[in-house]
Amino acid sequence: MELYLIVLIACLVASFSPNFDLFVRGEESNAVYGYQCQESRCVKIELTESNVEYAISLPVCRLLCGEAKVATVWPKPTGIVHTENFLQHIDVNIIAFEFPKLTKQQTLWEASKSRFLQQLKSQEIGTVKAGGAKLTVIIELGTDIDELPRITLDTDESYKLLIALTKDNDSIARIHSNTYFGARHGLETLSQLIVYDDIRREHQLLTKVEIEDAPVYKWRGILLDTSRHFYSVDAIKRTLDALAMVKLNTFHWHITDSQSFPLEVKSHPELHKLGAYSPNKVYTHEQIAEIVQYGLVRGVRVMPEFDAPAHVSEGWPHKGVIACANYQPWRSYCGEPPCGQFDPTAEQLYPILEDIYREIFHLFSPDVFHMGGDEVLSKCWNASEGIRNWMLLKGWNLEEDDFHRLWGYFQEKALERVDSISNGSKPLITLWTSSLTKEPYIDEYLDKSRYIIQIWTRGTSSDILPILKRGYRVIISNNDALYFDCGGPSWVGSGNNWCSPYIGWQKVYDNNLDLIAEGYKSQVLGAEAAIWSEQIDEYTLDYRLWPRSSALAERLWSNPAEGWRNAESRILLHRERLVANGIHAEALQPEWCLQNENECPVNKS
Amino acid sequence: MELYLIVLIACLVASFSPNFDLFVRGEESNAVYGYQCQESRCVKIELTESNVEYAISLPVCRLLCGEAKVATVWPKPTGIVHTENFLQHIDVNIIAFEFPKLTKQQTLWEASKSRFLQQLKSQEIGTVKAGGAKLTVIIELGTDIDELPRITLDTDESYKLLIALTKDNDSIARIHSNTYFGARHGLETLSQLIVYDDIRREHQLLTKVEIEDAPVYKWRGILLDTSRHFYSVDAIKRTLDALAMVKLNTFHWHITDSQSFPLEVKSHPELHKLGAYSPNKVYTHEQIAEIVQYGLVRGVRVMPEFDAPAHVSEGWPHKGVIACANYQPWRSYCGEPPCGQFDPTAEQLYPILEDIYREIFHLFSPDVFHMGGDEVLSKCWNASEGIRNWMLLKGWNLEEDDFHRLWGYFQEKALERVDSISNGSKPLITLWTSSLTKEPYIDEYLDKSRYIIQIWTRGTSSDILPILKRGYRVIISNNDALYFDCGGPSWVGSGNNWCSPYIGWQKVYDNNLDLIAEGYKSQVLGAEAAIWSEQIDEYTLDYRLWPRSSALAERLWSNPAEGWRNAESRILLHRERLVANGIHAEALQPEWCLQNENECPVNKS
Repeated sequence: MELYLIVLIACLVASFSPNFDLFVRGEESNAVYGYQCQESRCVKIELTESNVEYAISLPVCRLLCGEAKVATVWPKPTGIVHTENFLQHIDVNIIAFEFPKLTKQQTLWEASKSRFLQQLKSQEIGTVKAGGAKLTVIIELGTDIDELPRITLDTDESYKLLIALTKDNDSIARIHSNTYFGARHGLETLSQLIVYDDIRREHQLLTKVEIEDAPVYKWRGILLDTSRHFYSVDAIKRTLDALAMVKLNTFHWHITDSQSFPLEVKSHPELHKLGAYSPNKVYTHEQIAEIVQYGLVRGVRVMPEFDAPAHVSEGWPHKGVIACANYQPWRSYCGEPPCGQFDPTAEQLYPILEDIYREIFHLFSPDVFHMGGDEVLSKCWNASEGIRNWMLLKGWNLEEDDFHRLWGYFQEKALERVDSISNGSKPLITLWTSSLTKEPYIDEYLDKSRYIIQIWTRGTSSDILPILKRGYRVIISNNDALYFDCGGPSWVGSGNNWCSPYIGWQKVYDNNLDLIAEGYKSQVLGAEAAIWSEQIDEYTLDYRLWPRSSALAERLWSNPAEGWRNAESRILLHRERLVANGIHAEALQPEWCLQNENECPVNKS
Repeated sequence: MELYLIVLIACLVASFSPNFDLFVRGEESNAVYGYQCQESRCVKIELTESNVEYAISLPVCRLLCGEAKVATVWPKPTGIVHTENFLQHIDVNIIAFEFPKLTKQQTLWEASKSRFLQQLKSQEIGTVKAGGAKLTVIIELGTDIDELPRITLDTDESYKLLIALTKDNDSIARIHSNTYFGARHGLETLSQLIVYDDIRREHQLLTKVEIEDAPVYKWRGILLDTSRHFYSVDAIKRTLDALAMVKLNTFHWHITDSQSFPLEVKSHPELHKLGAYSPNKVYTHEQIAEIVQYGLVRGVRVMPEFDAPAHVSEGWPHKGVIACANYQPWRSYCGEPPCGQFDPTAEQLYPILEDIYREIFHLFSPDVFHMGGDEVLSKCWNASEGIRNWMLLKGWNLEEDDFHRLWGYFQEKALERVDSISNGSKPLITLWTSSLTKEPYIDEYLDKSRYIIQIWTRGTSSDILPILKRGYRVIISNNDALYFDCGGPSWVGSGNNWCSPYIGWQKVYDNNLDLIAEGYKSQVLGAEAAIWSEQIDEYTLDYRLWPRSSALAERLWSNPAEGWRNAESRILLHRERLVANGIHAEALQPEWCLQNENECPVNKS
């Protein structure tokens, strides 16, 4: 057994040669530069005969150097982090795994193992040197209940990771958690501790590590709108891969909207047949099941949203349940073309909704179901003589109060249908902030034990506090920090889109939920970044999401006291890991800044 | 020979069925929707038994319908466009080509043919129906001089395209031009006239077409900075493909900058060995030759820029010719880290430059060579005691005038070296606008017969007119419309980058060079959009360039009297063609807007 330890000489002085003396490495590597840790910073140095034994690659250096130890791990752990500065060359071809003996989890563990190995491979550059020590990964669960795991608001995602040498100088990584999900996070952390050294062309692992880690917020997600543009199953899976890499746990799937209806509904196939942009832009039940399972393996809840009563149009023309369908000029009836809102007075609507809910619950088994509820405009309903007559017959007027009563009526009837198909489990329901979540309507129509409110106002909006004061749990998607579609051109005119400018990762990182919640922190379940797809599709998805969703992930998992400046050098390196894993994340700074830590800021810290 | 003509029934009334009656097509197609031309607009209709014979696919409809005939062609032709509304099913597997019998062009024509066929294939969806008429493409050149073509400011890029039926009802497309480049443009136009019908699953071509076409501006390009981030050869080739699709003719390659030096220099290999981000981030001579040839085939001049005397640093540390190399705080000495400017007083500098120029000219044979010349700061030179002493010894002072004299001295000496290696051909030189292109320096140091000035100020800058009044030819890259890196986050602090907001395609399209040049139109060679790569690399290049570069292309080729609103439905369709060709162009509007022409604008026209 080969044992190969590298001791970090933390105070080595860089030996820059004033004369040109290009050092050419042997067959091992063609690297020209390496790194040394100097004053808690990884400094790039020309490789020479005399320093090559000590020079290390950038990721290796970042693992060892400075305050931000294990700086390759994103998001940073919240508990104990103890490491010793010894590295071992690991042979990634002979890693052994010992998984819990729970029959119902075996598929998940096998998939996790494949993904883990794939991530290690993704870091390799050129031909990897043969050999290295053996690593054994042992997963220990604090439970022996043999059931398929499920992420809920009660899931314990914490884990402990211990790495040590055996007496034979092999490495053992022991991950302990109470759940599959926590253990999976531990495996993710381990994969980020195994770094590739492009000078020695080998994978290296710290020989001694102790990490205790748990998330600060329980709801950590992104939203994808697959209606304004369709995304292939591959694009969604790629996104789930990346979510898992940064321990985000929720993929909020805004499946349908007024522009298209890509959800296969077996009980009403005309919805997707007519509602999809084309026959190949439909998510079949089979594909959805595949996506849900893919998420489960990666610790990601796939939460469906079926937005109603507004944001419906395409797919529904022959059902006779849509008011103001595709009315023009659209500005007078809806927020975006084509217009459309369910007609709450159409009795045939509710059995159709029940059929759709049944299929959705069958596919997703959601612990939380999103019913949308945004941008309902009375102007749309008021344009329908049938609706107006129905309201007048009830003795209502045609004022805003009355249209909110109509909306409340819809929501109540729709919720009954959800409850009738969910076997009395009464799942939690999320709704977007709207006029319905303001007083007095919120008290009249939305039960706080049942409804979670997703906030999409600005973070400073005065709409937020009244919701929290009433005791509602909230998920935060304040559009001034978490609407990732902001900043492009307008799509219905000239100039820039409504929520411009583009939101930098810095703002996402510093988006403090505690400040937004003003003393009601315990009601904040977490946050989601949103991809509204008017001007985004699968070809530009990655740069919109990444690495900004990574910034969100660290805010939610670690909630660091420090701001973005402290995370800058780490996110540059993390971004390279995303790219190596096939995620076309946006570049944040010239590569020179990655290679020359802390040399780029205007005010160097 | 099968002959299959489709007559457009231009005034067909859409037959929307009020009851649901989903029409299922036979094995030919699973299309649910088709299009009809109604009141000069392509309207989406549900396919039924009764309309399927008349319904056509969206691209086919756009070819035939409305004022913007041949609306699949981008940029739109500037001369005669005459078509008749008959379509023929073409078999793309049996297209015959007759090329000019010029030996030195054969490689180019063979490559053009492959590219042409590849583009037709890229439009296919599903299994293509067998059969169709034969198409023969005949290229006729107005010259029989057998030499390798070269794009210069005198190149005639005009062409004529005639499509007609033979007496056997085959199709013949005849392209006439005076140059390879014009003929190649004609082939590009032809490829955009052969559209795929996803209802009939076949390629269709108009049976009678007459197009005369020529560009308004002769210099039509984009700039790529490969120093702040490296781009693979594949990414550059992909970009050249897209340039060719929209008849842009210049790839301005800003190869080096202070952050990295990825240009292989055989005479001074330490430049790229030390200057590249890594050994695999170097453009070898072989790769450069490949890129230049790839551009030539596509009618794209690959123009090298070697920016000096500022914007140099990495790669040069051991040469002793750089002032203020990597000085900190960088803000005091340069525009971006790492700082560095050539030391004009270092006599050993000029022979090195000559060596570099020699290699560049050998590789690129440029008709115009870009020598950079932007952002030279006296603060950098003034920080060098050696430079100060040299100036004082000459009897100069240390004022701005004197540092401009030093800059002028550098430019003169560098130009001498260019001339000494270019065999007396005295190539045209481009420089960026700077304080050197302002009075009085411009008159002292820059000969207007020799220098082209590339304008990168705002379009309304008062710096522009004095340059034009003096008679300089200019290339316009006004940063308020043509800097495609604008609008992201800041990379050296928080907030957004310096030239925010993001520039929409609308602004690019409406960027009127005639207005910028105020009566000196004849001196405007054209324009370039710029990708400065601080926050862009090959993973996000496509969306930054496309479809905005297409908007630029139409402005430069066609210079339409109408603004962007008139091009909106066309660019949506064009963007789909880019995507089908592997270009990850940004989505401009929901797919619904593509499918529902003119339904999305706030103020419908």
